[in-house]
Amino acid sequence: MVRRDPFQPAKRVAGQKQDVWSIVNEAATASPVQPIINMGQGFFGYNPPQYVIDAAKEALDRVECNQYSPTKGRPRLKKAIADAYSPLFGKELNPDTEVTITTGANEGMLSAFMAFVEPGDEVILFEPFFDQYIPNIEMAGGKVVYAPLRPPKEGAKRKTSASEWTIDFSELERCINDKTRMIVLNSPHNPVGKVFSKNELEAIGAVCVKHNIIILSDEVYDSLYYVPFTRIATLSPEIAKLTLTVGSAGKNFYATGWRVGYLIGPEHLITYVSTAHMRICYSSVSPLQEAAAVGFERADELGFWEQSKREMKYKVTSFCEVFDELGLPYSEPEGGYFVLANLGKVKLPEGYDFPPHVAERPRDFKLSWFCIMELGVAAIPPTEFYTDKNAYLAEDWLRFAVCKNDDVLEGAKERLRGLKRYMV
Amino acid sequence: MVRRDPFQPAKRVAGQKQDVWSIVNEAATASPVQPIINMGQGFFGYNPPQYVIDAAKEALDRVECNQYSPTKGRPRLKKAIADAYSPLFGKELNPDTEVTITTGANEGMLSAFMAFVEPGDEVILFEPFFDQYIPNIEMAGGKVVYAPLRPPKEGAKRKTSASEWTIDFSELERCINDKTRMIVLNSPHNPVGKVFSKNELEAIGAVCVKHNIIILSDEVYDSLYYVPFTRIATLSPEIAKLTLTVGSAGKNFYATGWRVGYLIGPEHLITYVSTAHMRICYSSVSPLQEAAAVGFERADELGFWEQSKREMKYKVTSFCEVFDELGLPYSEPEGGYFVLANLGKVKLPEGYDFPPHVAERPRDFKLSWFCIMELGVAAIPPTEFYTDKNAYLAEDWLRFAVCKNDDVLEGAKERLRGLKRYMV
Repeated sequence: MVRRDPFQPAKRVAGQKQDVWSIVNEAATASPVQPIINMGQGFFGYNPPQYVIDAAKEALDRVECNQYSPTKGRPRLKKAIADAYSPLFGKELNPDTEVTITTGANEGMLSAFMAFVEPGDEVILFEPFFDQYIPNIEMAGGKVVYAPLRPPKEGAKRKTSASEWTIDFSELERCINDKTRMIVLNSPHNPVGKVFSKNELEAIGAVCVKHNIIILSDEVYDSLYYVPFTRIATLSPEIAKLTLTVGSAGKNFYATGWRVGYLIGPEHLITYVSTAHMRICYSSVSPLQEAAAVGFERADELGFWEQSKREMKYKVTSFCEVFDELGLPYSEPEGGYFVLANLGKVKLPEGYDFPPHVAERPRDFKLSWFCIMELGVAAIPPTEFYTDKNAYLAEDWLRFAVCKNDDVLEGAKERLRGLKRYMV
Repeated sequence: MVRRDPFQPAKRVAGQKQDVWSIVNEAATASPVQPIINMGQGFFGYNPPQYVIDAAKEALDRVECNQYSPTKGRPRLKKAIADAYSPLFGKELNPDTEVTITTGANEGMLSAFMAFVEPGDEVILFEPFFDQYIPNIEMAGGKVVYAPLRPPKEGAKRKTSASEWTIDFSELERCINDKTRMIVLNSPHNPVGKVFSKNELEAIGAVCVKHNIIILSDEVYDSLYYVPFTRIATLSPEIAKLTLTVGSAGKNFYATGWRVGYLIGPEHLITYVSTAHMRICYSSVSPLQEAAAVGFERADELGFWEQSKREMKYKVTSFCEVFDELGLPYSEPEGGYFVLANLGKVKLPEGYDFPPHVAERPRDFKLSWFCIMELGVAAIPPTEFYTDKNAYLAEDWLRFAVCKNDDVLEGAKERLRGLKRYMV
């Protein structure tokens, strides 16, 4: 009997290049400037609002809040989400059939792919993309097809708006064939900060209706928009019938480690997402579901959404001052908490000693490494969110997460002023 | 362009028969006896120990405990688990390379299958099996091969021990071919309550070493054993090299809704489990990982493990009195918190009105429905944990979860005395 090496991993987990997060962490540990100011990963530098923390603590005292929740989620949380989103969707959402809870938005997206993607099916992504989408699609046996967002033509020359990242609709149509099963949208967008306009979403929706493509709309930054925000599911009944909207209690309530996500959509889609979720995680974390329910129930009354938007917009504006000072162009986000800055004017010193696994990556990886080592500020190289073919589009940019305390942002700005020395 | 129905789900989530949990819940809602005493699902009827609850509340006050944890788990929890298990494994476990945290044991098992099972590979399970194993294996493209545990020959006649459920090793060997990739063990076993003996584990281990089969040992009830308990990973270095051990903070600390599991094993296996987990859930719930760390750190000093075992053993013994009284044989568990009782002597009334989806299932589904409707006690029909071919082996049994408060158990016993009326 011939058997392969028992320790050989399945292809889906084997032989990937080192991911951006571990490279950035490695640099952060090795940097002579300590402690690093970490504006890389999009976790919050502050706690969830006290009323949500208090709700979590109260849940921990209740026996039923520490035991298995129903696989589709706790009834109280499903109702709170249905109540919070019904006005936003302009229709009465049924908490039992049109909402399902997942273990973070990430596992929610995986559940959606597992529910509808058969091996060989194709899923369209806009590039740049949130990096986890790729393995999620591939785990379901799907093939990823990329449609690029075109960056602002003058992005290296002047301050631009995230709205200037554009879709080429003829390119999008060319991505479609009889294997196309789903398309992933992300608005507000990570890392670009673009809020897709109503016109853009109508055009995408029309394409999907024409070709019967399921829309998976990742809207985890949906409480953080600074221009009018349209949800694609609300555009027409035909589009709604094809749309799954993904949300995140962790993003909404500053608790990325809570792992409470949700999907909203028509029953004929949600029912299979729930089934996939049950087979992946069985059920999701109970006491924090209960706390998230309270989060949604009381947010309006406490003015939390308005406060959240106002505070984050302030962080964006305040942080970007340093790029204005330096004369470095940046793409001003329309939503979310990421700022893309163009460091084309920064000249990396000749012969700088980059480790080989950084030296072989595009210039943004070198910029990221350099900023950590020389300035003690961590940011993410966005070519990680591109295919090799299109990586050149982003090799002068870095992504900064501004969801940090104001004193941390001021510290980062002070350190970034040090870039002046390296500018042409 | 011909495209299939866009709403057609992927095969992996389509067209399953109604699961046992929803049938039992349906009966529980419909029963004239309210409230039902639910001894069906294995959730705890009481809270985690106060020191663990307090640790969770403290974690909620700390910013870093509410944000993303490292994908492999929080360092403090990995260290606490390595420290707790090193003496049990008889070797120093490396927390960074030999322990990884998952979103409950369930997603931990899925991560292991995703890490090593390629489409077409085979995975051997003992029957009866925990029902989630099947979709977990199938989601990775694996094929399940069943090796039955033979029930006690006299199980319908007299009280037996879970140790009398036996493995036919020639049957096991016949399951193996060149596609066999993994075998799943479960000790203490759900639903049988069997603690696999050292001899049995040595024989299984020898088979796996001979054929290079990865052992996935589900030991989530590992703090609840009432006879000597052997971990297969400790039997020899050759076996250890092939073994992934699965544990559950939720089972250990009475918090099935916390979704904190872990795998222990050699680095060459753990590393790929971590990768799969990262692609499924990204990371696991942070504040409850921190609380679980405190759970492990302080359990010995507080005598928690001894107390836990003593209290659960008492519940088993106390609950089984009612079967002794009734003269109903049962299989006495050697570990865990499930009791299998044989209701062969219970005569279901002629022409009893079972709904069609219950009437078409084996007799244990009818017994379960009947007990809920007539007595107000819910238990699980164990043929759910069998293939159709072998379901006859369990059609007279019901599974009772005794992890409930003592007054609840007394209430259940009082109601079950009502079975007397229906006994031959």
